[in-house]
Amino acid sequence: MATSLGELAVRFGLELVGDPDCRVERVATLAHAGPGALSFLANPKYRAQLAGTRASAVVLTKADAGRCPVPALVAGNPYSAFARIAQVLHPAAAPVAGVHASAVVAPDAVLDATAEVGAGAVIESGVEVGPAAVIGPGCVLMRGVKVGAATRLLARVTVYSGTVIGQRCMMQAGAVLGADGFGFAPDQDGYVRIPQVGGLRIGDDVDIGANTTIDRGAIEDTVIGDGVKIDNLVQVGHNVRIGEHTVIAGCVGISGSTTIGRRCMIGGKAGIAGHLEIGDDVAISGLTMVSRSLSGPGMYSSGWPAQPAREWRRQVAGLRRSTNRKDSDE
Amino acid sequence: MATSLGELAVRFGLELVGDPDCRVERVATLAHAGPGALSFLANPKYRAQLAGTRASAVVLTKADAGRCPVPALVAGNPYSAFARIAQVLHPAAAPVAGVHASAVVAPDAVLDATAEVGAGAVIESGVEVGPAAVIGPGCVLMRGVKVGAATRLLARVTVYSGTVIGQRCMMQAGAVLGADGFGFAPDQDGYVRIPQVGGLRIGDDVDIGANTTIDRGAIEDTVIGDGVKIDNLVQVGHNVRIGEHTVIAGCVGISGSTTIGRRCMIGGKAGIAGHLEIGDDVAISGLTMVSRSLSGPGMYSSGWPAQPAREWRRQVAGLRRSTNRKDSDE
Amino acid sequence: MATSLGELAVRFGLELVGDPDCRVERVATLAHAGPGALSFLANPKYRAQLAGTRASAVVLTKADAGRCPVPALVAGNPYSAFARIAQVLHPAAAPVAGVHASAVVAPDAVLDATAEVGAGAVIESGVEVGPAAVIGPGCVLMRGVKVGAATRLLARVTVYSGTVIGQRCMMQAGAVLGADGFGFAPDQDGYVRIPQVGGLRIGDDVDIGANTTIDRGAIEDTVIGDGVKIDNLVQVGHNVRIGEHTVIAGCVGISGSTTIGRRCMIGGKAGIAGHLEIGDDVAISGLTMVSRSLSGPGMYSSGWPAQPAREWRRQVAGLRRSTNRKDSDE
Repeated sequence: MATSLGELAVRFGLELVGDPDCRVERVATLAHAGPGALSFLANPKYRAQLAGTRASAVVLTKADAGRCPVPALVAGNPYSAFARIAQVLHPAAAPVAGVHASAVVAPDAVLDATAEVGAGAVIESGVEVGPAAVIGPGCVLMRGVKVGAATRLLARVTVYSGTVIGQRCMMQAGAVLGADGFGFAPDQDGYVRIPQVGGLRIGDDVDIGANTTIDRGAIEDTVIGDGVKIDNLVQVGHNVRIGEHTVIAGCVGISGSTTIGRRCMIGGKAGIAGHLEIGDDVAISGLTMVSRSLSGPGMYSSGWPAQPAREWRRQVAGLRRSTNRKDSDE
Repeated sequence: MATSLGELAVRFGLELVGDPDCRVERVATLAHAGPGALSFLANPKYRAQLAGTRASAVVLTKADAGRCPVPALVAGNPYSAFARIAQVLHPAAAPVAGVHASAVVAPDAVLDATAEVGAGAVIESGVEVGPAAVIGPGCVLMRGVKVGAATRLLARVTVYSGTVIGQRCMMQAGAVLGADGFGFAPDQDGYVRIPQVGGLRIGDDVDIGANTTIDRGAIEDTVIGDGVKIDNLVQVGHNVRIGEHTVIAGCVGISGSTTIGRRCMIGGKAGIAGHLEIGDDVAISGLTMVSRSLSGPGMYSSGWPAQPAREWRRQVAGLRRSTNRKDSDE
Repeated sequence: MATSLGELAVRFGLELVGDPDCRVERVATLAHAGPGALSFLANPKYRAQLAGTRASAVVLTKADAGRCPVPALVAGNPYSAFARIAQVLHPAAAPVAGVHASAVVAPDAVLDATAEVGAGAVIESGVEVGPAAVIGPGCVLMRGVKVGAATRLLARVTVYSGTVIGQRCMMQAGAVLGADGFGFAPDQDGYVRIPQVGGLRIGDDVDIGANTTIDRGAIEDTVIGDGVKIDNLVQVGHNVRIGEHTVIAGCVGISGSTTIGRRCMIGGKAGIAGHLEIGDDVAISGLTMVSRSLSGPGMYSSGWPAQPAREWRRQVAGLRRSTNRKDSDE
């Protein structure tokens, strides 16, 4: 959707350096942009690419504006300004109101007239879907699920009974929301399955990645706060509570009954044990094992960086030896 | 389903302290229970909540019974007694016998008359589904799959040809059972795909989590023993054999041809290499890397606990330095 | 499909020791083979099983041929020779040309007449599917997706718009190809979603495992080279580029914008941070954390091997202590 720089400057409160009638119609990287493309410079690593860019315009900081060979939109936070402009240039497809003929919808489900239900979707009894929501092809919404306005389930998302999803969320394909948690009581004959009767409450503006799984609560609810962003293949156990605007990268696992604060950043493949309390503003680096509660704010790590295999083996042996030696010394 | 404490005491062989006609209708936590709720006390951490509970009754040990302000059911193992009672109060929905009009069922599939097949399910030629089994919406059962009595595939579960599933299992949404394993022979031109012709045999009373994947065998079968419990997003490679009543937490990966014993407990995000033998009664803590066979019983670990990032970096550097120094000393 | 050893020797250029009319019809392990089975010996660990095998024939090296009690096919690389023969004995089912009545296919999709589209598949506008391709039950191909000749999407694979898949690929169930990447710009109000407008290009002869997720690019494309093999539950972030014939084991996570070279081997559960360059012929062992670029060739590690829990705790404490001590010394 082509737009002029003047319109963008007004709409997002940016300073414009250059022709307000210059039009941009898509985003591109500094290195590969061409006419009609808007690019951005936020990471200093790419500053050298600015001089040679063929973009029609660039979003950048005041400090970089002087070097820009093409029209510039000057922003305090060029990355988020770029993100907002990209939403204008590349809007999500508007919902196509109505239910696809191949979808299976229970007679008592309440679908807003502006909602879209895709091919092969299954919507069970008592489900409620809000205005402009999109239930993509192959999704399954079990009994009584609620989906808020303008939320999109892209495809093949499964939502169990007892799940309530807020507004403007986006759920990628294959996500499983509200599945039964891992609850088994050991007994002399093995394990007894514990019925999982809690629900799952997901706030507004939540993004959930492809094939991510979030379990319903065992007794009380699992809760995902407003603005939480969760990447692909993340596992969130039953009764977990995640505070507002926390961001969780791919392949993270969070065990049951752990509470995570607001504005945390959890790196890829981190593992967090159950029944812990993680404070607000905690950052956890990738591959870290969290086995105790952590108060915030602060940054925590425990991942070992890769080394040439021979050196690594020497270090593994070295620690073992030195521990033994010290133990005999003391 | 409301029940009297007297009935529960008789049914499960528990001692009752209080009014046998007192009725409970749902479970709740000690902290948030209200009238009609049954709670339990198994973890000493929650003992302080007992005095103030508003539950109608509590399941607990003899030692705790004296402090209970409301009627009590006394059990040697309160957690498993609670689990069994919860199954009475919150029974799984009974199967609705029959095939949904939108399901696609091969003419020669053999479905018991009491089985339920949900919307959009696909059941190929030669499949057999036992009494009171539930094949949820969007499931795909490929040629010749067998599903035992009272087993439930909740939604969007894919089961490949050559898979046999026992009785009373529960498979969460998105699980993929019997997919082709990762078998490629290196050659001068890259890799040659090796047809995966083994099957997958799953015992009775097995639970499998959402989006978990279990591969068929390369030549012989992959085998999951009776009573095995597997959480979400777990990967089980081809030819793996898992012994009875072993429990596997979320995000674990088990490489091909490894055999795991009975009654093992494998913590979240552990990784187990291929072609190993893990004995009976082995416990493996979360994020542990198992690269050698382990005889049981015993507890094994290798995960590093999170620390403040600055201290962690110092330790990483410290080990590297000390290993270098010792190597030059010796 | 039964075949004579003579035919196999000619077809694959192998030396035959024994009766060329001997027929084999299936593969089996040395230990469990019976009449009609072809086995192989590639791993010296199984050499002791050769003498007692009841296979009708065995594929092995010249060095082992003398000990073989049954007819032998002699190969320089017995494992890949076995794989090629297994493809003859156990061919994939030929596509059944045509579209299942329950599939939903957009009128302007272009499906080759020899392609197979399974039950409940959804094929949106502008999709192109090549000759002898198989779109299995429950797959979703969004607008404009292209699938090359003889590629198989086994079941419930989701492919987003902007994805182009080459020839002879095999995608296991539940894979999600081309989902929106994890792109959010932090702002004073939380995070701003960045439209993901790049595509996903997958080469020829690529295998992708069950429930694996590969994101589309943010601006430019994510690229998976020819011959790449990816196991189950792997996460590949946006803008990642993977070189030809690289092999990635289960549960690996690769963060956005990382480039991986050709012929790399990445062990299970390894995690690779974003914006890195991994050279050609790099091997990364299981559970390794890659947080810096690695030039190839070479082998890199950082996983700690499991130890008895008590010893492990001593080592963890030992490192902490020794680091503190050295820091106070210096």
